[in-house]
Amino acid sequence: MMNLRLARLEENSRTIVQVHGVSVGKGLTIIAGPCSVENERQLLETAMAVKEAGAQMLRGGVFKPRTSPYSFQGLGLKGLKLLDKARAVTGLPIVTEVLDTRDVSWVSEYADVLQIGARNMQNFSLLKEAGKSSRAVLLKRGMYSTIEEWLNCAEYILSEGNRNVILCERGIRSFESYTRNTLDLSSVPSVKELTHLPIIVDPSHGTGRPNLIGPMSLAAVACGADGLMIEVHVNPDEALSDKDQALTPGQFAALVKKLRSLKEFMEGSS
Amino acid sequence: MMNLRLARLEENSRTIVQVHGVSVGKGLTIIAGPCSVENERQLLETAMAVKEAGAQMLRGGVFKPRTSPYSFQGLGLKGLKLLDKARAVTGLPIVTEVLDTRDVSWVSEYADVLQIGARNMQNFSLLKEAGKSSRAVLLKRGMYSTIEEWLNCAEYILSEGNRNVILCERGIRSFESYTRNTLDLSSVPSVKELTHLPIIVDPSHGTGRPNLIGPMSLAAVACGADGLMIEVHVNPDEALSDKDQALTPGQFAALVKKLRSLKEFMEGSS
Amino acid sequence: MMNLRLARLEENSRTIVQVHGVSVGKGLTIIAGPCSVENERQLLETAMAVKEAGAQMLRGGVFKPRTSPYSFQGLGLKGLKLLDKARAVTGLPIVTEVLDTRDVSWVSEYADVLQIGARNMQNFSLLKEAGKSSRAVLLKRGMYSTIEEWLNCAEYILSEGNRNVILCERGIRSFESYTRNTLDLSSVPSVKELTHLPIIVDPSHGTGRPNLIGPMSLAAVACGADGLMIEVHVNPDEALSDKDQALTPGQFAALVKKLRSLKEFMEGSS
Amino acid sequence: MMNLRLARLEENSRTIVQVHGVSVGKGLTIIAGPCSVENERQLLETAMAVKEAGAQMLRGGVFKPRTSPYSFQGLGLKGLKLLDKARAVTGLPIVTEVLDTRDVSWVSEYADVLQIGARNMQNFSLLKEAGKSSRAVLLKRGMYSTIEEWLNCAEYILSEGNRNVILCERGIRSFESYTRNTLDLSSVPSVKELTHLPIIVDPSHGTGRPNLIGPMSLAAVACGADGLMIEVHVNPDEALSDKDQALTPGQFAALVKKLRSLKEFMEGSS
Repeated sequence: MMNLRLARLEENSRTIVQVHGVSVGKGLTIIAGPCSVENERQLLETAMAVKEAGAQMLRGGVFKPRTSPYSFQGLGLKGLKLLDKARAVTGLPIVTEVLDTRDVSWVSEYADVLQIGARNMQNFSLLKEAGKSSRAVLLKRGMYSTIEEWLNCAEYILSEGNRNVILCERGIRSFESYTRNTLDLSSVPSVKELTHLPIIVDPSHGTGRPNLIGPMSLAAVACGADGLMIEVHVNPDEALSDKDQALTPGQFAALVKKLRSLKEFMEGSS
Repeated sequence: MMNLRLARLEENSRTIVQVHGVSVGKGLTIIAGPCSVENERQLLETAMAVKEAGAQMLRGGVFKPRTSPYSFQGLGLKGLKLLDKARAVTGLPIVTEVLDTRDVSWVSEYADVLQIGARNMQNFSLLKEAGKSSRAVLLKRGMYSTIEEWLNCAEYILSEGNRNVILCERGIRSFESYTRNTLDLSSVPSVKELTHLPIIVDPSHGTGRPNLIGPMSLAAVACGADGLMIEVHVNPDEALSDKDQALTPGQFAALVKKLRSLKEFMEGSS
Repeated sequence: MMNLRLARLEENSRTIVQVHGVSVGKGLTIIAGPCSVENERQLLETAMAVKEAGAQMLRGGVFKPRTSPYSFQGLGLKGLKLLDKARAVTGLPIVTEVLDTRDVSWVSEYADVLQIGARNMQNFSLLKEAGKSSRAVLLKRGMYSTIEEWLNCAEYILSEGNRNVILCERGIRSFESYTRNTLDLSSVPSVKELTHLPIIVDPSHGTGRPNLIGPMSLAAVACGADGLMIEVHVNPDEALSDKDQALTPGQFAALVKKLRSLKEFMEGSS
Repeated sequence: MMNLRLARLEENSRTIVQVHGVSVGKGLTIIAGPCSVENERQLLETAMAVKEAGAQMLRGGVFKPRTSPYSFQGLGLKGLKLLDKARAVTGLPIVTEVLDTRDVSWVSEYADVLQIGARNMQNFSLLKEAGKSSRAVLLKRGMYSTIEEWLNCAEYILSEGNRNVILCERGIRSFESYTRNTLDLSSVPSVKELTHLPIIVDPSHGTGRPNLIGPMSLAAVACGADGLMIEVHVNPDEALSDKDQALTPGQFAALVKKLRSLKEFMEGSS
């Protein structure tokens, strides 16, 4: 991994990604929101709830990569307009996934952070297009990808001139089926040693079990994660996608409190 | 897997994909050629050699999905023009990979079969675009993908109206590192039971070792594969990509002979 | 793998393991029988049926490694006596699994071949004990084991002085859940290249689906396997263990015919 | 997992395993020591160092499960006598691995806790023998094992009457090769939800990289682990086994301080 532009050069040269006043890579950045944008009421209620609970960015998918072509595929432009409204109401910057090279430029007019999902981690055309964008990019680790491959994908974005890359560990695929994926927290200190980029953790996809989201979020903070991305839904049972892994606003608020307190403790004790 | 259009309905309703006189799904279809199109001499020599050895289609990549952005990325349009020339000289239909939704329509003017690679198996935008194309589509299994997920990806193409889908097993990722991937030949009879689509096997990526290509090709035929896609290079040691897994034209010719003879035996004995 | 006694030295120095007139490593050796020895009627009927169908050895477990302590654990000594009777009736040598170092010597009085199962592949005490035995040893690949680790386990047996080792590929664990394990047939030509030992394939555990046993057995022969070990039960639906992967005697007889014919073809054409 | 004796019945019924004054399952239990017992000086110096740093038990292997039969296999009885001496000097209870059913009773005369290693997790004879012992048993998760299979192995011990079982997460095998194993910390809160048994974490085998041991130990504490087992060697570069993953006494002492402080914080904040 010698020739990577992302290789960490010196102890104090870490990249901090600035997104409308949020500094990813400094302190603990918490991104929350529903898996999918479903309708105005669902999105605004969730957005206001996560804002109040202490989230600093709002996530919500409008293009959903679904296993089956017959599952809900997302609201598209209509969803982006709802995200725009939610941002206006809450002031939270927006993180949303982009799936297609042709969508990068116009989606960038709505999104503050472009997410590249696990299934597209090695969609090199999409990486290059995101590398030409002026938006920050949140790059999820592919479910089948080694740390080295993942960092090379970040390099695809950096090599096009966009230095605002946030890595996101979301679990890899293993034989274990009790959890939806196997959250590989070892990648957090590994990435921080190998690169200067910030890394956050997605315990929702990483576990697929609401009861594990809290403990694994705390573990992520303890091993040095710069942030968390957590799925929250005002009514998880009625979610159109990933309903089994969303927290309620109440659960989320209680968790954020613990996470901030732990981060403060970790920073004081290191 | 109940709602798939690709579900097999009756014993004798298998799809045969017609590509300029080649019937994929009937007998044994052998696709061969270099990993990457490198230059005119390399391509034409290889094309003529595989034609003479009995290949029925020519493969060659012009957009290469490479782990690092600093590796050879392929010749692009220039490569397509070389493939066009090779087709004119040999009469072999062309199989080439497409990586970007924006490229599907113009690449279709050169390619007879559009390949969707393992890393893009769940690039749903690309699948839909290929589903709108009039070209046959060769859909490789993702290295991290279950059979069920793979068939759902085929369904994305079929649901757009394109019924000419060829599945290609190319190995999955496991902990075993002796082989480049773990070639999962069980998928061949599984897919033939679950669907009406033809399935071929890529033992080059599936093993990453020239010595294993022959035995695993024979195994693929024995368990019912409709074809093989094999990397051949006039000078493997000088290949710009995947040089460790290409056969020489001589090795390939000897293998084709064995494969055709085995296929004939299998059809006679079943 | 430099220091292994099993390293292949010259092209024609392959080990042939002799078991009461059966030469494993020459032609195709077919081992069949029930997963567990359940009672006299079940065992004798199955034994006579597989003998008639052309099997050359009888398998049957009397100590069963079961996931739960509350599942059927096998008949123990009583089962060995039934195997003894089945051998007397059919003349077939007996293959049976041994789980405990303390059992190796007395089980050897009944068994012709000691099987070491996947879960015990790295039970080094058991390997050493088997290495001191005068019986041939059938060493299954661990479900989590690389080819290199497996061959090192064979080396544990060889280094104690027992040269009669038969390797058995039975599938590795991957994320794919359609099959019970992922049968890694690439190990067959790999092992034959790396060592002088015979290798057989167990498609019953390797797939866990009766419909896949036939195709994968044929594939195993095509890539060079020296034999097969197949579960057969007179009444699969009533089997006390692994009932989902046993063939009926009729299915087995039809398969043996195809396998012998394919082996003959392969030997003629190579 | 309905019929397991280890299933958690009520919120406050957790098992606390008592080992000579150390209460595993209450607070944070730290076990440390060398991978292998090598000689008196190495063991005693390490034992005194880890005692002073705050470890509550001493680990050290005298029977080593090694991939190759030609690697160092451990000191056996001589090593047990050295462990006995180290216990006399430091007062620390001894944890040591047992590989063979025949060794359980006599090794129990030296060991305070019998360790069953990852490779023997499904050595059911050994589990049963350990279940008959009066010693506590530390059961490592197999590198290929699901949580459900692991808990069933604990059940094998419990069902023989020994209730003093400590589970130990040590990483599972995945395709990622940057780390030696993939430490699956999700198992910690999962096991605590599914059972009443204490669970500790082994970050040394779980990562195989000294730089990751600290962060992953902190993460383990944050998600609820009852303890840690960490490899420490007075001179890691000269260790006869696993030299790449041992901490020096100095590194270990600094880590213990952080871990105890974090545990205190976690208990105060929950």
